[in-house]
Parts: sequence; structure tokens; C-alpha cells
Amino acid sequence: MTAKRPATLHDVARLAGVSVATASKALNGRRHVSTTTRADVLQAAERLAYSPNTLARGLVAGRTGMVGLLTSDLEGRLSIPILMGAEDAFGADRTSVLLCDARGDAVREGHHLRTLLSRRVDGLIVVGARPDPRRSIGRDLPVPVVYAYAPSDDPEDLSLVSDNVAGGRLAIRHLTEVGRRRIAHITGDPSYSAAHDRAHGARQELAAQGLELAGDRVYFGAWSEEWGRSATRMLLARHDAIDAVFAGSDQIARGVIDALHSSGLEVPRDVAVLGFDNWEILAASSQPPLSSVDMNLETLGRVAAERLAAAFDGKLGSGVEQLPCRLVPRESTAA
Amino acid sequence: MTAKRPATLHDVARLAGVSVATASKALNGRRHVSTTTRADVLQAAERLAYSPNTLARGLVAGRTGMVGLLTSDLEGRLSIPILMGAEDAFGADRTSVLLCDARGDAVREGHHLRTLLSRRVDGLIVVGARPDPRRSIGRDLPVPVVYAYAPSDDPEDLSLVSDNVAGGRLAIRHLTEVGRRRIAHITGDPSYSAAHDRAHGARQELAAQGLELAGDRVYFGAWSEEWGRSATRMLLARHDAIDAVFAGSDQIARGVIDALHSSGLEVPRDVAVLGFDNWEILAASSQPPLSSVDMNLETLGRVAAERLAAAFDGKLGSGVEQLPCRLVPRESTAA
Repeated sequence: MTAKRPATLHDVARLAGVSVATASKALNGRRHVSTTTRADVLQAAERLAYSPNTLARGLVAGRTGMVGLLTSDLEGRLSIPILMGAEDAFGADRTSVLLCDARGDAVREGHHLRTLLSRRVDGLIVVGARPDPRRSIGRDLPVPVVYAYAPSDDPEDLSLVSDNVAGGRLAIRHLTEVGRRRIAHITGDPSYSAAHDRAHGARQELAAQGLELAGDRVYFGAWSEEWGRSATRMLLARHDAIDAVFAGSDQIARGVIDALHSSGLEVPRDVAVLGFDNWEILAASSQPPLSSVDMNLETLGRVAAERLAAAFDGKLGSGVEQLPCRLVPRESTAA
Repeated sequence: MTAKRPATLHDVARLAGVSVATASKALNGRRHVSTTTRADVLQAAERLAYSPNTLARGLVAGRTGMVGLLTSDLEGRLSIPILMGAEDAFGADRTSVLLCDARGDAVREGHHLRTLLSRRVDGLIVVGARPDPRRSIGRDLPVPVVYAYAPSDDPEDLSLVSDNVAGGRLAIRHLTEVGRRRIAHITGDPSYSAAHDRAHGARQELAAQGLELAGDRVYFGAWSEEWGRSATRMLLARHDAIDAVFAGSDQIARGVIDALHSSGLEVPRDVAVLGFDNWEILAASSQPPLSSVDMNLETLGRVAAERLAAAFDGKLGSGVEQLPCRLVPRESTAA
């Protein structure tokens, strides 16, 4: 940005000591360029503040190298990992993913959408604030759109979501693998489909193993530590024979651990505790560190990018695609 | 986006039942338009998917209605509030703030910067991942740049940071106001200037009140719950007369509360605990809920927007501007 005359591809090639063709390949992320050469070219491009005529290049290739991520996530907790996964899949030196936050406000979302479209983004990723269906941003948009985390309410749209039923099954499978049999389930707000899906998966896996849920019922409540604490107190008052709690979120799990400790029970010796979300700040800092089911948000982002990239050359699919969760074991469920 | 013929300002005005002048004022966020009228016009604009010819308008007004936020924040915890504050200040229907995440990688940052500049953003906000000085993205850029949270290492740049020294003073003032006199300070990684600044402010305020820090020294360590727990155990082993702990972060404070509870001490009855960051997920869910110093990140964003807006018409200042923190009292320091 400091050069008086804008640097050209020739300047970059000269500084990197490679041919113009090689510099071009390296900058466009094509194969057949060694990692070292690529690094040299990128460094040269950076030193010269080389900025290809992006619009012109976009017109030629039919692409502008910019994808919009439209979110309503107030904390960035969901959208930043999805953004990172998408950018990694595109290649960060080929496509910038730009995030706009609509905060759940339709007017603001419309404004951001117009801004992104007027800048001729190549595609859009729409991330909801909660995993329930959200309003479609519309058909007939000039670019392909993929919904991630929250599905679109229009079945003609393509949505990528975490498979919460499979996540519930995974949780129970892990707890039984470490020898637990009397497993209770404390989860969040019953207005969230994800709460029911996780509980459904948990029941499926228990049934497959000839087990029943401990504590008679699923404890639905709120996505909070406070609910984890009070539900655990209720549970212990009525059913002292539990040896594990599957919590519907890491926040709930933190409350569960607190209440177990207050009742003189040790985790995992007396009761194993498993969370959901694998939110590092809560899970890794817990005492003991909390095992948790991870929704693979970066993978959602990566697959969203792949679907968009495929749509640049052809057709975008439709419907809801479920992606698997994974289990991250820590001490709270150690055998 | 579904209209075959793009909607015009006339269409919007007709649908909203107002004059074209009023519709224009409402869409441009000017004053002298009632809230109801404004809402009607925005709704009409949305229904018609009205998209003004942004580039043309940008050329006329010298602005494009798009500001870039270049961050390296891996969680969005710092940058999303700053983005929201900036957007609120600009008026969300006039300017979209687009976030790009460089993840601390200079090559990636350079690429994002070129993308944003090639899209002709009006200005840039650069947010660091930690509150220490970061490399300037350069002088002679075609648009004004404001650094928020982490200052630029170039004194010619304009940086807006939280006043951590004043934050430390604020913390001690609050603890003494609720009657505490034997206050210890457990804080994070000593390679962070913010850790020293907060400790410095705490000592200043203690001295002003004729008090000394309890526990002989500042307990520097890590920004983690685990450090909060182990430092508290050390502190209690040597100095049992403390009646308050000022923690350098909410994560540390959560560990402090845990360790106090494990030692049979009650919070706040026996020992008051005050955190820093006011990270809702940790502070509000704590038992008891945690009082904390808030760095006013949304205000940083708002002021960054104001400085950029002023620079569109004139000159951008330089140097480091310190913005105040505020205290958010909860139960952990109740009198």
C-alpha cells in the first residue's frame, strides 16, 4: 500500500526470483508450486503490497474472491469457527470471508445482504444464532447461499447442520464405554429442537444397549450453570444411584459438577459428567476438565465452502445435510 | 432480490406512503424523520429489496458505506462487541462493518487488507488479539485506520485502548467502598502490559487510601481458572487475613471463588471477589454472580467509528487514546 506505482505481477515475480507464470500459479493457489516457492511469492506480494486488479480478475474468472458470512451470533462463538473452516477450505490467500452481524434483526440483515451483493460476493454463508430453522433469505439471489448451523425454513435451500441425534448417541456410547450404566440427562430450553434431538439420540443408544435413562425423565430447563446446579440437586434428592450425567451443554455441565462437589460426590470417581459444545473456555478450565461433544463447527464451515465452490461451477443442492459430531474426552469421564 | 425490475426510491416512498425526500432522509439515517416513518420506510425498502446503486452513491458522497474490521481474535469475544459498537455509531442502515479474521498471520492479514481496499472500504478498524502494541499495517493507506484494543506500534497511528491503570484503581475503589481493607491481587501472564497496568492502578488506589496490598506481592501467573485456584491456595496458606481478592480476569476470579469455597470460606461474606473483563458467560453464571470491571468494548467500537467518520471529512488524529472502564457490581462483592 506504500508503493507509489501499484506493483504488478512482474514486480512480484522479480522480487521472488521466479517466472511470472510461477508467481501467478502461487498466488492463485494452484498445485505444482513448491511450498517454499509459494511462501517466497506470497512474501514478495506482501512486501510490494501487490493487489491484483480484483474486479477485472473476478470478471474473467467469474469470481471475485470474496464470500459473505451473514450471522446473528452475538458472541462470535459459532460464526468465527465456521468462518475459519470456510476460509481454510477456500484457501485464505484466494478468498476472504467477510462477516456481517445482523443480530437477529431482519432490517439489518437486509441491509448487510444488499451491501454484500452490491460488492459482488461469490457466495453467502448464513449462520443462525440457534440451531432451529430460520427464515430463508430468499430464492433467486444472484449467488449461491449455504445455511450453516441453523437450517433454512425453505426446503429448496441447502442447509448444513450438526447431527444432534447422533451427538446424543455418541455421548451415551462414550459413557457406557467407560463403564457407566445409570446415566441421567440434564439439558436446556425445551423450545430448542437441539435439546430434543440430543435427548432422543441418548434414549436411542440407551435402548440399543438395554439400558434406561436414570432419573425417570429428561431434565429440560435452561442453558445455564444455574439450571445444571438446581437440576442436579433435584436429581440427587430423588435418585442417588446415578453414576453419570450427560449434560446438554458445557454450561449446564459446569453447574452439574459444582452441585455434585457440594454434595460430597467426586467427579468422575462417583459420577462421570459429559458436556456438549466443547466450548474451550468452559470445558478445559473445569475442575476436573470436562469431556464434551464437539459440533465440529469448523467442519460445517469447510463443507459450506466446498458446496459453494461446487456451485460456482455447477448447481447447488438443496435440503438439510447432517454432519457428525465428535467426542472430546477429558478427565470428567476418565475410566 | 426477487424483484425483476430493481426497485427505485420512488417505489419505496410509494409503498411507505411518504414523499421521496422523506424516504431518502429515512434511508440515509438523517434526523427530522419520526421513528414510525423511518420504520415504515425501512420496511418498505426491505419488502422491495431496494438496493440503491451503492457504488454510484459512494462516488457521489465520497463514501461506500462499508468499513472493514481486521481482527486476529480467535473467539470473536473482543471483535464482535467492537463491531457492534462501531455499527451502532455509524447507523446500521448506512454502514456495514465487515469483519475479516487474520488469526495473527501477517500474510493472511495482508490478503484481507488488499481485499478490503480493493472493495473500496471507507475506513478500517484493526483489533488485536491481546492488549499489547501490534505492528502497524502501514502509513499512506488510501483510507483512515483506527486501532482498537491493541495499540499500533507506530505513534503516528491513532489507537483507542482501555485504560487498564484506571480499571485497577476502579477495582480497589469498589472493594474499599464495600468495606474491604485486606485486598490481595491475583492476575495473569506477566508478559501482558495489561496485567502490569491493572496491578499498577490497584497499588495507586491502595496507596491513596493509606492501604497496602495484602499477600505481600501481586500474584502473576496465567489467565486461567487453574491459576486462580492454585494462587488462592498459596495465598491462604500464607496470609489468612485477606477479606477481598481483585482478580485480573474473570477466568482467574472463577478459580479464586472455587478455591475459597474448597477452603470453607464464603463469598462475599468472608472474602469478596472482583473479576475483570465482565465476560457474561463466566461472570453472570458464577456462584455467587461475579462483580467485574468491564472494558467497554462497544464504546471502543463506537469511538473508533466516530474518529473514522471525522476523518472522512478531515484529518485523523494520532497517538494512543485511553478510554475508561466501568464497574459492574454483582453479588460477589455485595456489602
